[in-house]
Amino acid sequence: MSKVKLPKPRTLLFPMPAVIAGSIVEGNPNFCTIAFCGIVHLDPPMISIECSANHHTTVGILENKEFSINIPSTSMVEVTDYIGIKSGKETDKSEIFDIFYGDLKYAPLINEAPVNHACKLTKIVELAGTRELFIGEIINSFVSEDCQTDNAPDIERIDPLIYATSNRSYFKIGENVGKAWKIGRKYNKK
Amino acid sequence: MSKVKLPKPRTLLFPMPAVIAGSIVEGNPNFCTIAFCGIVHLDPPMISIECSANHHTTVGILENKEFSINIPSTSMVEVTDYIGIKSGKETDKSEIFDIFYGDLKYAPLINEAPVNHACKLTKIVELAGTRELFIGEIINSFVSEDCQTDNAPDIERIDPLIYATSNRSYFKIGENVGKAWKIGRKYNKK
Repeated sequence: MSKVKLPKPRTLLFPMPAVIAGSIVEGNPNFCTIAFCGIVHLDPPMISIECSANHHTTVGILENKEFSINIPSTSMVEVTDYIGIKSGKETDKSEIFDIFYGDLKYAPLINEAPVNHACKLTKIVELAGTRELFIGEIINSFVSEDCQTDNAPDIERIDPLIYATSNRSYFKIGENVGKAWKIGRKYNKK
Repeated sequence: MSKVKLPKPRTLLFPMPAVIAGSIVEGNPNFCTIAFCGIVHLDPPMISIECSANHHTTVGILENKEFSINIPSTSMVEVTDYIGIKSGKETDKSEIFDIFYGDLKYAPLINEAPVNHACKLTKIVELAGTRELFIGEIINSFVSEDCQTDNAPDIERIDPLIYATSNRSYFKIGENVGKAWKIGRKYNKK
């Protein structure tokens, strides 16, 4: 396969999520959309977000050491993009969603989003001289009741938003192409 | 929307990738499949992988301070799952792929995978007392020529594998549901 070396290295990960992080800023819930998010530890479960120091949400995370991660469905594409475009510095985002809480009172969870995590800030990793990588331990996880199948969160019902950075677009998930930890056994027999 | 609080917090991120990380272990290329991967910094571009200390690939990363991230397409579902099932301790994985290199000689890149990054290990973050989060600066990025549209990497041509942890399945991407940084303006006018 013929390869193209890109002129500059790029943050190309496929697929990439588009999560909505939340915090309490000066007593008010605020949210921002983040694509640079990943699971960083299994047990205890931990998640990372790269959040620019000048994000309004970041102020709340630093103040209260708690934040939320909310995973939007494709039906939330407009509001998710809006949350990413508008800064909490100019726009009050506290009335946009129906908010609930788990065990952490500074981690505002979005009822409309099918999956929610209440997180405790456990580490800030300095990268390139900045303080931008926030790592949080997931304290509670919630799933919308209608997004489960046989008591397990079901990606097809969750219908998550996929962010495609180089296409500058959002996508849905498509068809199931195989069982994990199983389909590889076929390869093994070749 | 009625919510279910899961009995235990869980590493539920949607979507989640299934990347193939590579390193050189005792002179031999080795690979492992990782779902706990995320972009952690924009400029310079950096990526993280959570890689258990007993992974064979980890030995090579620690030894040479370099690794690769390769993003498989859905046509590679069997081999990607196989790479995740089989440990390099028992199985020689050096002959599975057609390998090439960028500027880093200890970052073996997989020609069959549509997107490849050669990474330099820049940080190991200790989480929960372990040394498991590897952060790498992306030094070179490559894309298969036929996965570009108008000189930009195109997610539909890349056709990345999506790992759904709670379904224990792999999925394709589906339809485009909107332009990022744009569709949110519609919400704004409501």
